[in-house]
Amino acid sequence: MDKKINLKRMLEDLENLRQFGRTPQGGVSRQPFAGPDKLAREYLLKQAAQYGLQGRVDALSNIIIGYKGKSQEKKTLILASHYDSEINGGAYDGILGVVSGLEILRVLAENTIELKYPIELVAFNDEEGSRFGTGFSGSKAFTGLLTQDDLDNSIDAKGISLAQAMEKAGFDPQAYKDAIRNKEEILGYLELHIEQGPVLENLSKEIGIVTGIVGSCRYSIRVTGRADHAGTTPMNMRLDPLQPCAKLWAELPALAKIEDDDAVATVGSIVTKPGASNVVANSIEFTLDVRSLEKSGASKTSQLILQKLKEYCGIDYNVEIKNLKTLQQEEPTPMSYEIISTIEAAAQELEASYHFMGSGAGHDAELFADLCPTGMIFVPSKDGRSHSPLEYTKPEHIEKGAQVMMATVLKLLQKLN
Amino acid sequence: MDKKINLKRMLEDLENLRQFGRTPQGGVSRQPFAGPDKLAREYLLKQAAQYGLQGRVDALSNIIIGYKGKSQEKKTLILASHYDSEINGGAYDGILGVVSGLEILRVLAENTIELKYPIELVAFNDEEGSRFGTGFSGSKAFTGLLTQDDLDNSIDAKGISLAQAMEKAGFDPQAYKDAIRNKEEILGYLELHIEQGPVLENLSKEIGIVTGIVGSCRYSIRVTGRADHAGTTPMNMRLDPLQPCAKLWAELPALAKIEDDDAVATVGSIVTKPGASNVVANSIEFTLDVRSLEKSGASKTSQLILQKLKEYCGIDYNVEIKNLKTLQQEEPTPMSYEIISTIEAAAQELEASYHFMGSGAGHDAELFADLCPTGMIFVPSKDGRSHSPLEYTKPEHIEKGAQVMMATVLKLLQKLN
Repeated sequence: MDKKINLKRMLEDLENLRQFGRTPQGGVSRQPFAGPDKLAREYLLKQAAQYGLQGRVDALSNIIIGYKGKSQEKKTLILASHYDSEINGGAYDGILGVVSGLEILRVLAENTIELKYPIELVAFNDEEGSRFGTGFSGSKAFTGLLTQDDLDNSIDAKGISLAQAMEKAGFDPQAYKDAIRNKEEILGYLELHIEQGPVLENLSKEIGIVTGIVGSCRYSIRVTGRADHAGTTPMNMRLDPLQPCAKLWAELPALAKIEDDDAVATVGSIVTKPGASNVVANSIEFTLDVRSLEKSGASKTSQLILQKLKEYCGIDYNVEIKNLKTLQQEEPTPMSYEIISTIEAAAQELEASYHFMGSGAGHDAELFADLCPTGMIFVPSKDGRSHSPLEYTKPEHIEKGAQVMMATVLKLLQKLN
Repeated sequence: MDKKINLKRMLEDLENLRQFGRTPQGGVSRQPFAGPDKLAREYLLKQAAQYGLQGRVDALSNIIIGYKGKSQEKKTLILASHYDSEINGGAYDGILGVVSGLEILRVLAENTIELKYPIELVAFNDEEGSRFGTGFSGSKAFTGLLTQDDLDNSIDAKGISLAQAMEKAGFDPQAYKDAIRNKEEILGYLELHIEQGPVLENLSKEIGIVTGIVGSCRYSIRVTGRADHAGTTPMNMRLDPLQPCAKLWAELPALAKIEDDDAVATVGSIVTKPGASNVVANSIEFTLDVRSLEKSGASKTSQLILQKLKEYCGIDYNVEIKNLKTLQQEEPTPMSYEIISTIEAAAQELEASYHFMGSGAGHDAELFADLCPTGMIFVPSKDGRSHSPLEYTKPEHIEKGAQVMMATVLKLLQKLN
């Protein structure tokens, strides 16, 4: 029996799928219900059919392809990732997990392997949120978390709601509850994804075994002072909000690791007002994004950073934190120990080098961790690039990732129940 | 003989002139060749005529009102400031100097005082640059520095050139050289202006005796790093341009005073790209404005600051200064010692409290310092506010300023030749 992953077939899939939404820069823009997604669905279903695999598309346009392996069980092991992309994103983010799952089904099907439990590949729609902002509508519908409000009030740049976009693409938004899957039917959840960061490459590891998905806090903060003439106002008579802010920003790397070593803190957007070269700013608005794998870690680190800012504003500079908006606050999602240890056993068996790590980005897997044993496998991203046409994962890493995933699947089917 | 300054008359002038370009916020928008400037001209010429003072408007719409005092001399002492305003600026910036000069001419005229040299009040047009960007076109024309290029390539927000705007307002742009005044005809130059900063108020002084106008350097600086995912990129694997920039900005107050104690350095505009909360910035562009009264002081302090930035980028963070544009580089303009000491004598005579200080903002006076003895008198600005409807100078400070100016004028006419 030849149960081997066929790398060539996977690379062909990736290359073919890259065409559906290809951008002039060589990236991919495959947004939900926008056209190219339909071509990707047709492609995947056709590939599956060639190997006798049954496929269907659910109410939210998630693609579901099953292999029963003569199992009579109701419970199903889910292999999943997403098939939508960022705007001008890469050709691996999400879709590599889909192609890996498809390849495993193909290998099982062409070898007519008998299984204890059925397997389903789920290619989720709209994980990124690149069109409607929030994302995860596919996996939320699947796990019963999507609401009528999400359908009506997730609006794209042209003012079209998710519900309207679904209708226009031939889907019935009223039927969104049909996508819900019963918790009792789910045996476990396994997702392969590119790392989207530089850690595996830097450590020269082939496989990332995800121990959890970070929790995050995100804020928008406005610090106000007084607009003064840049020439006529001596330095010691200014109320310049830049002073406490700059002091804080310069200390971010140090502040981030006070609570836990792996936490990250990012100020990605700064807006100065009035924003003229010859006027001291009277307002600085910036974003703060903090993530941590520890329980309440992001929140603790955020509080520490915000406390520092308050201190700098009040004591040293007499400027004010005028507006502090919490944009996001999420606890970390631990992965299942059972799956973590199974991935490790599979990696060892295949002599793949591996590293236990957190996921700094969100994934569909998050939504399953409360429902069933859930795990994730990462493969390296060249130079840590993602959400960019520069996104790349080497063929040997793709192959190793799929091999470890397949070995993990076979082990899990024995272990889980 | 009653040679006294009439405060009531000055306050009436200020209130009347405030109406020409009044904004809904209570500020003034009196831009060059835009309509309200014409009403201000008519008002000033009418006031002058009521006291038998001859007035005219030159090719650049500078208003020139003379008082000969029976002098046969060709050389003229110039009292000046500007009558245009910032957009929604204040009712004192520039126009207070014009009203003070007018009041002095009125007092001289109604007392038919005989003078050794004639006096001219010049109300310059377009000092601020609020319409065509660069400003000083009135005083540049007067001193022979305006060029055809300035007329054709100073463009307003609607794409109208200075030359076109002049034509539309009934002026002949071809005739701009008619505004040039021969250097030999100018005895000296004296300008009263609001401080536009908080120094006099903070020191409880009535009069600022300006020792010089600061030199300035202005830069636009772009520091580039690498856009990274804010979740998946550990702090120590980032190339975040914010790190060296924030470190520099936090140190600005300390760095500004290394070369000289009164230098100022301002970062008023910061633009982060891509500017998303969940992406480490790959580019930060900011402005740096440095001013100093010392010769080459702004340039020395700028070099010191830029050197620091280079050091922080290279050694600590490995990000790059990608683009450094010099937007402005000007040497300071010292005021004439003869006028400085005359203002001091006048202030002492009138028992006015005074403070020697630099001007952090530019003024028409800059253009005269090379041509003739030049000096400036500052009066306090409430809370240091300027370029704002909040701009305010107390009546007692207006009165004291005009009194000191008048005493200075009378002394200068004896001293200069």
